[in-house]
Formats: sequence, C-alpha cells, structure tokens
Amino acid sequence: MRDSVKVFAPATVANVVCGFDVLGFAVNAPGDQVLMRRTDRPGVFLSKITGDQGRLPLDPAKNTVSASVQHYLQHIGRADIGLDIELHKKMPIGSGLGSSSASTVAGLFAVNTLMDNLLSNKELIPFAMKGEELACGYGHADNVAPALLGGFVLIRSYEPLDVISLPFPEELHVAIVYPEVDVPTKDARQMIRSKILLKDAVTQWGNVAGLVSGLFLKDYELIGRSMTDVLVEPTRSILIPDFYKMRSLALEAGAIGFGISGSGPSVFALCREPETAHAITRLLQQQLKNLNINSLSFVSPVNPSGPVLLD
Amino acid sequence: MRDSVKVFAPATVANVVCGFDVLGFAVNAPGDQVLMRRTDRPGVFLSKITGDQGRLPLDPAKNTVSASVQHYLQHIGRADIGLDIELHKKMPIGSGLGSSSASTVAGLFAVNTLMDNLLSNKELIPFAMKGEELACGYGHADNVAPALLGGFVLIRSYEPLDVISLPFPEELHVAIVYPEVDVPTKDARQMIRSKILLKDAVTQWGNVAGLVSGLFLKDYELIGRSMTDVLVEPTRSILIPDFYKMRSLALEAGAIGFGISGSGPSVFALCREPETAHAITRLLQQQLKNLNINSLSFVSPVNPSGPVLLD
Repeated sequence: MRDSVKVFAPATVANVVCGFDVLGFAVNAPGDQVLMRRTDRPGVFLSKITGDQGRLPLDPAKNTVSASVQHYLQHIGRADIGLDIELHKKMPIGSGLGSSSASTVAGLFAVNTLMDNLLSNKELIPFAMKGEELACGYGHADNVAPALLGGFVLIRSYEPLDVISLPFPEELHVAIVYPEVDVPTKDARQMIRSKILLKDAVTQWGNVAGLVSGLFLKDYELIGRSMTDVLVEPTRSILIPDFYKMRSLALEAGAIGFGISGSGPSVFALCREPETAHAITRLLQQQLKNLNINSLSFVSPVNPSGPVLLD
Repeated sequence: MRDSVKVFAPATVANVVCGFDVLGFAVNAPGDQVLMRRTDRPGVFLSKITGDQGRLPLDPAKNTVSASVQHYLQHIGRADIGLDIELHKKMPIGSGLGSSSASTVAGLFAVNTLMDNLLSNKELIPFAMKGEELACGYGHADNVAPALLGGFVLIRSYEPLDVISLPFPEELHVAIVYPEVDVPTKDARQMIRSKILLKDAVTQWGNVAGLVSGLFLKDYELIGRSMTDVLVEPTRSILIPDFYKMRSLALEAGAIGFGISGSGPSVFALCREPETAHAITRLLQQQLKNLNINSLSFVSPVNPSGPVLLD
C-alpha cells in the first residue's frame, strides 16, 4: 500500500450550452493537484492550500476536499486512517470551470489510490457530489462526473444516479476564456426561473438530443446547431461582459459552438483544431481587454480519462 | 411518367414517452393506402375513402391528403395537373398512431412518385406538416417525419426545421394496443400545462438524452430506463383506462419500456422479440376486455424506410 500520492484532476465545462444540469465534459487544462500522505494521527487534515489567495477554508470539516475524503473513509469503514492533504489550486475559483469539483475529485482519486482503488471512478461520483453540496449548496454531478470519468458525460438521472459516458470526436479542442469578474455559482443559479414554458423546454430537449446525436455521429455541424440555449443563457449572459459580442467573434473565427461554461463567467468555444481555439482565445481576450477586463485563457483537447497520478 | 400509383404509408409512435414533440418512430403495421391516378380534369379530387366510417371529408380543400397534395403541386408549379385519389384507411382514426399523418404521407409519396421523385422524402416533411396543421390544428412533425423517413427520428428544431434520423436496434419490436375510447389530439394537447417546473424539464431532457444514447449504443436497459415522462404522461394517462395497470403488465412481461403513443389512447411497448410483443398485446387486451373495452392490437418491427410502392 502506498504512503503518499500526487494527483491531478481536470477542470470541466458543465451544461455544454443546452444540457443544463445533465451534460459536461473534462479538459486537460486547467486543473488542480492534490498531494496526500498517510500519517499516524487519525483523521483527515489540510496542511497547505496554494493558489487560492487564501479563499478556501483549512478547517477539514468545511473544505470540500477533506470533507469528501472523510465521507469516503467513513463509507469504507476506515475512519481510523490518518491523512494529510496539500491542495494546489491551478485554476481560478468561481470561474465556472468546476474549480471545487476538480479539487474534490483530486482528493477522492488520491484517497482511493491509497486504498488500492477499492472503488471505481464511477463509484466515487456520489462522494464528490457531497463535496459539491458543501461548495455550492447543491449536489450536482455535471462537473464531478466528467472530472472523474473524463470525456463527455450525461447525467441521465439524479435519483437514482445514472451516468452515461458519451463518445466525442477526438480532434475536438476547447478554447476557454475566463474574464476576471465574480459570478458565484449560488447567485447564478438563483437568477434562473424555476418555472418555464413547455414550448421552451421542447426547444431545449430537441437541442440536447441533437447534441448527443452529433457527438455519436461525429457531426460537427449538428453539434454546433444544437449548442443553443433558450432558457438559461439569456439570463446568465447578463453577468458576462460582452457575451454576445464574444459569441459572434468566436463563431466568425470558426468555432463549432460557443457558450457559458457552467454558471460562468468563463466562456468556451468548441473547435475542430487547436489553431482555431488559440485564435479565438486571442480575439476574446482582446475584446475583454478593450473593456479593461483581465482574463485567463486555456486551450485543450477534451480530456479522455479523468484524474491521473503525477508521481 | 406513371399514370397511377398505389402506396402504403406507416403508422407512427410520436413522443416515445420522454420526447414530447421531438421524437417518433414508424411501424410496419398498421398504415394507410392511397391509390392515385392522373386525370384529364385539372385539380385534385377525392373519389373514395374507405375504412373511415364516414368520418373524413371528401372536400379536397378540407381533407389533409388532397390539401397537402395540392400544396405540393402548387410548390412545384404544376397546379394544372389533374389527380384522382382513393384513400383506404387501414388504421383507426384518433388513435394516437399518426392516422392523419399516414394518410397525408401516403398522398405526398404518391404524388411525388408520379412527379418522378422531384423531391426527397425529407423535403416532403414541410408539406406533410401543413396536412397535420389542418388535421390537428398544430403543424407538428413527430408523426410525419418518421412516416416519411422510417425508423426513429429526432426533430431537433422546428424553426428552422432540422430532422435527424437515429439508429435503432433492428430486433426491436413494438406491441401496440388501441383501446376503443375517444381521445382527440386537440383535447389531449389542451390538457397539458403550458408552464412547467425547470426541475421537471431537467429530468425530462436527461431522459431524452438517455433514450437517444440508448438507441446509438443499442443499450436496451438504457432505452428502457429513459422511457419515463414526468410532464405529459401523468396528465394524458388519465384518459386511458387502466394505464398504469397496463404499464405494470407490459413491464412484468418483459417490455423494455411502455407508454402512450402520441396523444393516446393507444399504448405501446418496446420489446426485444416479437414473442414478447405478442404476449403483451394479449395481456393488455384481456385487461381492457375485463373493463368491457374493445381494443385493436398490432405487433411490428420498427419500419426502416417509410412509405412504399404497392404496385
């Protein structure tokens, strides 16, 4: 049995425009790292967090990483074990890129590795959802499931949990731009209406079905046509500077589709080639710079396999 | 150029439980027949309708078959042509099996054959939708698109119209039972709430995505799990005698999934083998007989190709 492990878990793009709460995919970059060591003192402790500008709690009961690891250990009947965790945030918090999810998944993947992979990555999803509940007030799976499984993931059902891995064209690349404005997930969710028109729901599930079909058929045009959202984007886009301008720029530059990543403010574009993705990040960052808004950008293929060991 | 043609167009199961207004599939039986002859007298005329118990209009402007054929001829600039139509209904009207759609599609396929297949079957969809508007007050495509294309069909979008053929397991069989009670499409639609909970919509589009994935993956379990409807079925099932009892009987007898066909009152079960489908129709018809309700039943594979020439 290992005594220590260092792991990486990926950022994720939830919703994928039309699939609110049911679709998400993982990227290779950015993501978070966790270094986990067994210790003699029973209990789960956080000795260090870097890259969070002091925003995350070191209290093991309040931090999503340690809390979900504790939950895992209780479940497998090993609450006697002692663990020390270092969390190295390599991605912005509150960015809409599944920041809490990447940390939580890294922690769970680390502890499960130390426990000789007692559970499958898929079996770790409910533990990671508990972490999301702590972080966002809502135990959603559209970040943690793709972070754990890699690729595109469908959450067909929450009760009971039913998670389906979808195929995707390997050459798909993602351009991500994070405008440095603050949009907490809780507030972004509260903006969404709880009652909607059936007519709009029909439009939405036509697109969800179109996007899933496009992924199976590797039909880029169909994927792109399906990436429209009549329900959530009109509201959430208000919080994102020049959202529709950025959308036009991305689509004109050759993006297959464009939208808000999770609850934003990050935006993403799906592209056929990395060159297009890089060109789009440059255009969008320039657009934001014109508004005096700093931004970060990432270009990545779709992450095929979820978290990985780094040592 | 032919002078006459006899065609068959298939019945269809719209919605497929979770995919309200966006999914449908065709069956080999039942269906309608149209005999169409060129005549010297310009204009489109209905000389005979059989199997409708006198319920359908012979007035060419009011009958969906002649009206959509006229619309087609105007579109191709051949309103000068004379046509005589015999419509032979081989399926119940108002059954939820796409009765008007089968007739309309048979008429359009017939006239397009006489016009040397000027348009593709897919291009005939908008003309058939006009027929549906006349028949049901609402130009939906989830019957006419599968009737024209065969197989499982997704209507991703209505504006613009975007129709995607989905794969399906070839061994799939359908058990259909039509309880002889009256449920007009217009009334069945009016019962449905126009505002719904976002929460329920998320459940629904998770299932739509699951059903589409199941069809691509030929995963019967996933197809079955996805065939649940939290929005429309709870309302429409009220009009169908012993709906939930029939559902239990079908699932216990080995159906993959069970639900209302279109707006009902027909119900259908998807099955892996024809034997299961036959056993289910016997069980459901007996159940209805216990309530003194007459019924018709059909067992068919999924129709792979839409309308066919009979001569």
